[in-house]
Amino acid sequence: MSLVLDPAAQDLLFREARTANTFTDEPVTEEQVQAIYDLVKYGPTSMNQSPLRITLVRSAEARERLVGLMAEGNQKKTATAPLVAILSADNEFHEELPALFPHFPQAKDTVFSAREVREGSAALNASLQAAYFIIGVRAAGLAAGPMTGVDFAGIQKEFLDDDHTPLMVINIGKPGEDAWFPRSPRLEYDQVVTTV
Amino acid sequence: MSLVLDPAAQDLLFREARTANTFTDEPVTEEQVQAIYDLVKYGPTSMNQSPLRITLVRSAEARERLVGLMAEGNQKKTATAPLVAILSADNEFHEELPALFPHFPQAKDTVFSAREVREGSAALNASLQAAYFIIGVRAAGLAAGPMTGVDFAGIQKEFLDDDHTPLMVINIGKPGEDAWFPRSPRLEYDQVVTTV
Repeated sequence: MSLVLDPAAQDLLFREARTANTFTDEPVTEEQVQAIYDLVKYGPTSMNQSPLRITLVRSAEARERLVGLMAEGNQKKTATAPLVAILSADNEFHEELPALFPHFPQAKDTVFSAREVREGSAALNASLQAAYFIIGVRAAGLAAGPMTGVDFAGIQKEFLDDDHTPLMVINIGKPGEDAWFPRSPRLEYDQVVTTV
Repeated sequence: MSLVLDPAAQDLLFREARTANTFTDEPVTEEQVQAIYDLVKYGPTSMNQSPLRITLVRSAEARERLVGLMAEGNQKKTATAPLVAILSADNEFHEELPALFPHFPQAKDTVFSAREVREGSAALNASLQAAYFIIGVRAAGLAAGPMTGVDFAGIQKEFLDDDHTPLMVINIGKPGEDAWFPRSPRLEYDQVVTTV
């Protein structure tokens, strides 16, 4: 075994974890989301810029608006998941940089003075954090159902503002009946990895 | 405890794992990289598109070329890390989609017929997979040192082709002496999470 991570943890996070399409009624509590965040906040980002923002859609009114912005094939599961979260990138993350990256407080006004540079960096780093969040949901014993089949412009308008770019919507909960399709194949090592 | 993941695994992957700046001489073997890939390949991507590609820089000649393309502050650690990997997004991932997503073999020629659409989707999904890979490196008991302070255009020209967009360079190995700075602060839950 080349991995030191406990095999049960490998299964929980990767091998047996699946993108769920159905969920039980069991609620996802605020304490669970806090525990997930308190774990995955330590995942690395460039200069610790930490641009991911999370919008928990908990009210019935907000859920209904969100469902209307999902692709048709995503609507039913988004309507019935115990919790739905909108993940976005904060393009004004540089405002927090002097606190987050005290080694180089000038970064806010030099490296990241241009919005275009911030948008590129926020997209990459918030995507990394989105993956850490998915892993964290699984670490809480829950299934994540990340979706990009959404009306991104509509979500930005209805739920965010001009400074936040939506990345994905994630259904969260305990998997229900027939929660997933058979697992699709993955690329072989030699299709992905080359050595120079 | 709201998490079901074993606390030792939480520490290994998030709480005690750190971005290393120095490494020991212990090699990172092909078997370790294969074990990492065989774990993290299961991380979810949109339509299972799996666009991440990994270039392992193992030869002295290639390492020297790569070091010359790193920002000055990243050169020494990139020169001395046991293994360095270039992570990139394959913008032609749709060629593999009929095998990877057999539910919807038409996706290759419909949803992803336009290069611009593929580039956006590959950037997001390869970034998710880059995060899974960082977690996988840690699952192997190794430290990852992801870096975006690099000459991306130079890396694309020297190591990739027009169909692959470089995302980051990662040093991999056992942490050496004085491997890291004190951990920088993270945002509080209420700075990141809002509820609607």
